[in-house]
Amino acid sequence: MTQTTVHTNDALPADSSIPDYAAAKARTLRFSCGAPRAPRLLGDGSRMLFLRSDGAEDTVTSLWMGEADGAETLLADPRALLADADAEDVPAAERARRERAREGGSGIVSYSVDAAGHVVVFTINDQLFVSVLDAEAAAADTHALDVHGPDGFGEPLHPILNPRVSPDGTRIAYSTGAAVIVVDAATGEAGVAYAVAQGERADVRAGVAEFAAAEEMDRYDGFWWGPDSRTLLVERFDASPEPLWTISDPAHPERRGFDHRYPRALTRNAIVELYVVHLGGDRLNAERTALVDWDNDTYEYLAVVRWDVGHMPLLRVLDRLQQHEQILRVDVPKEQDWKRLAPVKDGVVPLMPVTVLETHANGQWIDLIAGTPAYTPSGALICSINDMENDTNRLTVDGRPFTPVGWQVRAVLDADDETVMCVVQRSPEQAPDVPRQWASTAADHDARSFDVVAFDYDGDVYPVTDEPGVWSATRAGDGLVVTGRDMADPRARMTHYYRGEAVAVANNAATPGLDINVRFVRLGERGLHAAIVAPTGVRYADARSLPVLMHPYGGPGFQEVTMSQSAYWDAQWWAEQGYLVVIADGRGTTGRGPAWDREVYKAMKQVTLEDQVDAVRALDDAVRRINEAAAYGRHASGARAHGLPRPELDRVAMIGWSYGGFLSALAVLDAPDVFAAACAGAPPTDWTLYDTCYTERYLGLDEADYARNGIIGDAPALRRPLMLIHGFADDNVTIAHSLRLSHALMAAGRDHTFLPLTGITHMTNDPTVARNLLLLQRDFLKRALER
Amino acid sequence: MTQTTVHTNDALPADSSIPDYAAAKARTLRFSCGAPRAPRLLGDGSRMLFLRSDGAEDTVTSLWMGEADGAETLLADPRALLADADAEDVPAAERARRERAREGGSGIVSYSVDAAGHVVVFTINDQLFVSVLDAEAAAADTHALDVHGPDGFGEPLHPILNPRVSPDGTRIAYSTGAAVIVVDAATGEAGVAYAVAQGERADVRAGVAEFAAAEEMDRYDGFWWGPDSRTLLVERFDASPEPLWTISDPAHPERRGFDHRYPRALTRNAIVELYVVHLGGDRLNAERTALVDWDNDTYEYLAVVRWDVGHMPLLRVLDRLQQHEQILRVDVPKEQDWKRLAPVKDGVVPLMPVTVLETHANGQWIDLIAGTPAYTPSGALICSINDMENDTNRLTVDGRPFTPVGWQVRAVLDADDETVMCVVQRSPEQAPDVPRQWASTAADHDARSFDVVAFDYDGDVYPVTDEPGVWSATRAGDGLVVTGRDMADPRARMTHYYRGEAVAVANNAATPGLDINVRFVRLGERGLHAAIVAPTGVRYADARSLPVLMHPYGGPGFQEVTMSQSAYWDAQWWAEQGYLVVIADGRGTTGRGPAWDREVYKAMKQVTLEDQVDAVRALDDAVRRINEAAAYGRHASGARAHGLPRPELDRVAMIGWSYGGFLSALAVLDAPDVFAAACAGAPPTDWTLYDTCYTERYLGLDEADYARNGIIGDAPALRRPLMLIHGFADDNVTIAHSLRLSHALMAAGRDHTFLPLTGITHMTNDPTVARNLLLLQRDFLKRALER
Repeated sequence: MTQTTVHTNDALPADSSIPDYAAAKARTLRFSCGAPRAPRLLGDGSRMLFLRSDGAEDTVTSLWMGEADGAETLLADPRALLADADAEDVPAAERARRERAREGGSGIVSYSVDAAGHVVVFTINDQLFVSVLDAEAAAADTHALDVHGPDGFGEPLHPILNPRVSPDGTRIAYSTGAAVIVVDAATGEAGVAYAVAQGERADVRAGVAEFAAAEEMDRYDGFWWGPDSRTLLVERFDASPEPLWTISDPAHPERRGFDHRYPRALTRNAIVELYVVHLGGDRLNAERTALVDWDNDTYEYLAVVRWDVGHMPLLRVLDRLQQHEQILRVDVPKEQDWKRLAPVKDGVVPLMPVTVLETHANGQWIDLIAGTPAYTPSGALICSINDMENDTNRLTVDGRPFTPVGWQVRAVLDADDETVMCVVQRSPEQAPDVPRQWASTAADHDARSFDVVAFDYDGDVYPVTDEPGVWSATRAGDGLVVTGRDMADPRARMTHYYRGEAVAVANNAATPGLDINVRFVRLGERGLHAAIVAPTGVRYADARSLPVLMHPYGGPGFQEVTMSQSAYWDAQWWAEQGYLVVIADGRGTTGRGPAWDREVYKAMKQVTLEDQVDAVRALDDAVRRINEAAAYGRHASGARAHGLPRPELDRVAMIGWSYGGFLSALAVLDAPDVFAAACAGAPPTDWTLYDTCYTERYLGLDEADYARNGIIGDAPALRRPLMLIHGFADDNVTIAHSLRLSHALMAAGRDHTFLPLTGITHMTNDPTVARNLLLLQRDFLKRALER
Repeated sequence: MTQTTVHTNDALPADSSIPDYAAAKARTLRFSCGAPRAPRLLGDGSRMLFLRSDGAEDTVTSLWMGEADGAETLLADPRALLADADAEDVPAAERARRERAREGGSGIVSYSVDAAGHVVVFTINDQLFVSVLDAEAAAADTHALDVHGPDGFGEPLHPILNPRVSPDGTRIAYSTGAAVIVVDAATGEAGVAYAVAQGERADVRAGVAEFAAAEEMDRYDGFWWGPDSRTLLVERFDASPEPLWTISDPAHPERRGFDHRYPRALTRNAIVELYVVHLGGDRLNAERTALVDWDNDTYEYLAVVRWDVGHMPLLRVLDRLQQHEQILRVDVPKEQDWKRLAPVKDGVVPLMPVTVLETHANGQWIDLIAGTPAYTPSGALICSINDMENDTNRLTVDGRPFTPVGWQVRAVLDADDETVMCVVQRSPEQAPDVPRQWASTAADHDARSFDVVAFDYDGDVYPVTDEPGVWSATRAGDGLVVTGRDMADPRARMTHYYRGEAVAVANNAATPGLDINVRFVRLGERGLHAAIVAPTGVRYADARSLPVLMHPYGGPGFQEVTMSQSAYWDAQWWAEQGYLVVIADGRGTTGRGPAWDREVYKAMKQVTLEDQVDAVRALDDAVRRINEAAAYGRHASGARAHGLPRPELDRVAMIGWSYGGFLSALAVLDAPDVFAAACAGAPPTDWTLYDTCYTERYLGLDEADYARNGIIGDAPALRRPLMLIHGFADDNVTIAHSLRLSHALMAAGRDHTFLPLTGITHMTNDPTVARNLLLLQRDFLKRALER
């Protein structure tokens, strides 16, 4: 062959000295297969249920029981229950539900258990299963339930979405999308709690969450059992006001496009209603139905529905701008009063009154804190507020803020009459005093650490987790399960505490096999939390300088720089390719109080890019300080230096996915003097193409703010190498975003590279695609940064 | 800004020394706007109709009259007739028809005229117009015809597709896609000649050509007037056996995909039928209808329908493999016998018998020669044959071959009782003797030249055109119109001859403003016709060597190396970017006899690539010979040398569109030692995704031949830069071809660049896109060939 210096792809196969990280990451669903998850304590807390698959690359998840002595018992194995359990065959509506929940596993991906912890229900491939737990031994009898209606039953019984067992364990409710079906858990006989009329079926759904709730409010349910096991709350929504969008697969012209309603920003939302259904004597069919009478014109978002034992249902509803909310109580009749309620007659549904318990407002937007609102057992009302005056996301009890200033509450895990167990982040500037348990590591218990603590109603803090990490927990009886990750252990941890004993639940997950080499720093005048990740391999061990790869998400509501080793795996892989990788959390990325978050309001584009630029500009100084400290340490100890290579500031690239993709494209478009190249994955480019609930929260309803924060208009400015990556099957950030940017670049004559991915959604779980995406980006950036 | 050597796009705007050729080419519809076209002689041949727009960038075409004295009269101007003539608003079915015909203009894009030349009909934006010509003066009265049915008329009257005036000028027939409507040309009253039943409308069409006929057999009509103006032939086809394909626009998720039936290779074709319709006393509505009784199971392709004055209709039908054909006469009743034909009763349609006049066969495939079969006025039957024994595409008269061996007949333009006027190409090896008129240029009257000649029935040749070029002609009475192009004139020519006088019809077209610098050579052992195009500009005037750009179409049935200057404009533009551009016509590209064409049978991929490789390998020697001859000439004349730069054979790239795109992708995949980079536009990649009629003609019906001739499986071999370009709106070579290749490249981890084009079909008439496509390819190849 004639010798040329044409660049070829010969270098593309993975360097043999680097583990094939990308393919392993995809095959293991980001190293999550085989890890225990979804813990649920039973009874006195000595037993727990959880899900886990058998191996590091096994996506088929089984149901397990764990006991306080460390014994683990397999209760239900999909492969034993269903011959074709490995061949995923889930209904389209269920696939869509899992895409919203970013669920990539199969087998038993979720389950429901009754109050006593005796009956567990789940589906595999649209088939309903019931596990009856043995009251004594750690064992269960699991069988498929043959769901059937009586003669003349007119309502289709499939698909079976989100089955939930009633608190008393005798009934199972689920949604078909068009109806909420109630099934006798013993016989499989079915009744209808609520059904959409035949003529309405195209766009009206019942018993499932609308797109905006699932994608943007973390509400995946569309019906809820009452504590009496005879009453249900059922969501019904009419999506017909939303634009009808088609997700097409042009690589397969023989396939029809998938049409769905999409709540496009600045257009109308689905109309959401909530019904209270009281079942009749058979407790399978509706006897009385009433429409919950909240003002859904003004408060169109139904963010939270909750029905705690011993209380009336609680709702949290917000207005379109998410600047005003109401906490509502639904005034459900007592059992004996249901009969007095008028039945549905001539299509007229009686109204169910609500009582406004609290109202909150915010000049920008209100944050939804998971687990709120909630009643304590004795009936106190726990709410979350964005306390702007004290710059703290706090909890209130019956309207009185009680969690201390400087402790950012991220989630409420449980509220009893003594304490509220929460996930928190600490702002050291506002809350310098830390619990005794944290004293030695206090510096790391800041915005990077998601700690579990209990607050009493005087605001005193009782740590539940000790070490910095990203933790969550659940408690019941005398039991406690702590789950999460930290910097030391590559695997997620699940620990079961019971009366002072702790046992770790076994974890079959693979680890990426990377040596993590992370330095935490604060960068720039805003003290951005940042991580600098440097190579460990021999190849770049002696490099005096390296090009820089910025690797942000950077968008509102999501932190990257956390005390979890897994947050740095991708970055470490990139570092081994010969980069100093930097992750910097700019304004808006949470953890530093509500004011920090709201800096991006109507200015996302400018603010989030500015902070990445600041991080780059502060990098040289930060590395010098790190190396000076290392040199001092070496001098003092005589040990080998562990200094960092110097950043080559004329060779800075950025990569990212989703908002990180937006930021990456933006970086080369608007800051070409700082960023020499970028790879943008699934980037939003025109915010009017994104959804209402997310986008309007940050940009409001004025079109001018959308034009100012989009990047299509910047296309003519491109003068740096840019690779766009987008999946045709993405129903969240649709490929229209990248196609329109590509078209604008083409119209402006601007060179760029596009990888349109057939069959790929907003997640990239295909191992081959995931691996090759990394390698193709690596080679693209390598060429782009060549000098 | 920090200095780096990162490649940027700064060089992308067109070099100021080069005219902005690409944008001009698109704005002028390839420099065709303003050129006269569609000539039609009237009466004794002293007058003619033609179409022409007013300017070089004016796409709105008007109807003109030309006279023998050179006078030109505007007869109908769309802008005068319709206020919004500039705003194209044609029905979707008409747009699809124009895409098949590669028609990019607007206004009056076609017209129909009666036998006497008095009545002309056409549509603009779905409105029907009638021009009544003045019998004396060169003038016309043009008016919109208000088409209307009588009370209770149930058939929709729009869209108006392909209106055709009856030979006697009193009626106008057109198709709505679902029906053939007949309209009184004076009153606009409508009747129905044929209508598809309501229940069949989704996939059954009438009066229009099915996809395969229009795309692959150059048959755009779906109904034909009989010479009596009272009988019609009407095609009806049922496309429901064909796969339903969706052409989607994922850049606009709010748009539904366009569903259409596509005759995918190896799947079933539409079922085509032909009806004879005799109109009743009002001559607007069918009185009798009969189904033409040809064996459309065996002969499923209806390639030609023709009904000459004084004769019965002629059909040309072929079997699925296009290896057997029948020439059929439809035995239509005489006027007085129509009444005896049974009417349609209970859905049973009487059959109309046919007589088999000739049958032909070929071991590979039969070529369709335009204008055949045909009757001479006295009733002799002219047919075309592929005479394999003599390696000549010839004509027969009543079964007797009469055109001489070595004269490849490409089209029959007219057949009278003395001569047949044809377009021919000469094979000098077989036909060394040339007419006296051609003596001085005989060497150029070979496969590169499309000459018009008349053959008498003894096979004697009478040239109509003298100079080598790409010519066509029409004749009537004492008039002759010659149209075409040659190497000298950048504009197409249209010359009207009448009784010894010649006048040129004015041409408003722009010229590209390029100095054409072409050398014709024969390359390699097969003596491939090739053109070497070298720069003329100062920038590369003194270059001693240049990289090579191969610029083929290269697929079966289409030559590139012709005696038309316009064939080299693109190549010349590329040459000015610093390339030695080579166009080489390999086996299969026609003009050199039927054996040459059939070399590609079931071996397209291997054979067409092999010939491009041969051309590259023979290039150095060819250039040396050219330069030696130039040096000798310079020595002899003392003039300045015009030698060519030497080809840099380690820097050879290929670009191409459609089959040329296939060949370009193939080049870097399968011959990476020869080709260093490629840009592939709208390439077929998997022949099973292309249509039946084209693909099976060359590959047959064995799937193994498709696998062997496709390139998806070669994806892992890619190690050269490859740019894919494809339009989402392409309904011919759908974007699925490129997406699947891209996906296979991704799956194999092979780097490549993709430009997916929103809203672009198989033609690229958007000026911005066309311009930028050229510039982006230029910059891509420049980087790829850098050393």
